[in-house]
Amino acid sequence: MADPMRIRAALSGEETTVRVLMSHPMEPGTRKDASGALIPAHFIKDVEATHNGKTVLKAVFSGAVSQNPFLSFKFKGGAKGDKIVVKWVDNKSDSRTDEAAIA
Amino acid sequence: MADPMRIRAALSGEETTVRVLMSHPMEPGTRKDASGALIPAHFIKDVEATHNGKTVLKAVFSGAVSQNPFLSFKFKGGAKGDKIVVKWVDNKSDSRTDEAAIA
Repeated sequence: MADPMRIRAALSGEETTVRVLMSHPMEPGTRKDASGALIPAHFIKDVEATHNGKTVLKAVFSGAVSQNPFLSFKFKGGAKGDKIVVKWVDNKSDSRTDEAAIA
Repeated sequence: MADPMRIRAALSGEETTVRVLMSHPMEPGTRKDASGALIPAHFIKDVEATHNGKTVLKAVFSGAVSQNPFLSFKFKGGAKGDKIVVKWVDNKSDSRTDEAAIA
C-alpha cells in the first residue's frame, strides 16, 4: 500500500488553500531499465478532493506527472476544522484516501 | 472575453513546476444578490494542460473553486523553451487558451 498523502488545508479570508503531496512512483510506461526492458506503467490516473463530502476538484493525471505528485488549488466556503478528503486511483486500480482538517 | 491566464512554468532538475492563475468570477450558482435573487452559475468546469501538445493534466472544477482559480502541479520530461498550453472551458461553453514557455 502506498504511503499516506500529506495534505495541508489552510484558511485565509474566504479562501482555503489545499496542498497535496502524494507518494507514488509515477512510472509512465515508456522508460526502459538497464537491460532495455520497458518499465511497466504505474501512475495515478484520477484524483478527487472533497470538502465536507462535496467534490471541489477532480484531476486526471498523465504518466508525465512527476514522481510523488504535488497538486495545489484554492476553494471558497471552507471553515476551520472542516474535513478535506483526497482520494487517488492509479492505473492498477490501487487507491489511497487521506484526509486533513482545515487549519 | 476573459482576461488571459498567467502561466509560469519553471524547470528544476527533471521537474517542471507549472503555476496557473485564471481570471474568472467562479459564481457557484448558489449565491443570492442584494434583492434575494440567485446569481446565475458561471464557473470554469474543465481545465487541460499540455506540454508540447501532450496532455499532462486535466482538472474538473466545481463551483466551489475560488474566484480567479489557482492551480499548480509538476511534471517530468520538460525542457527550457518547451511550450505549455492551458485551456479552460466554463459552464457557458466560453473558453480561453493561453501558453507559456518553460523557463
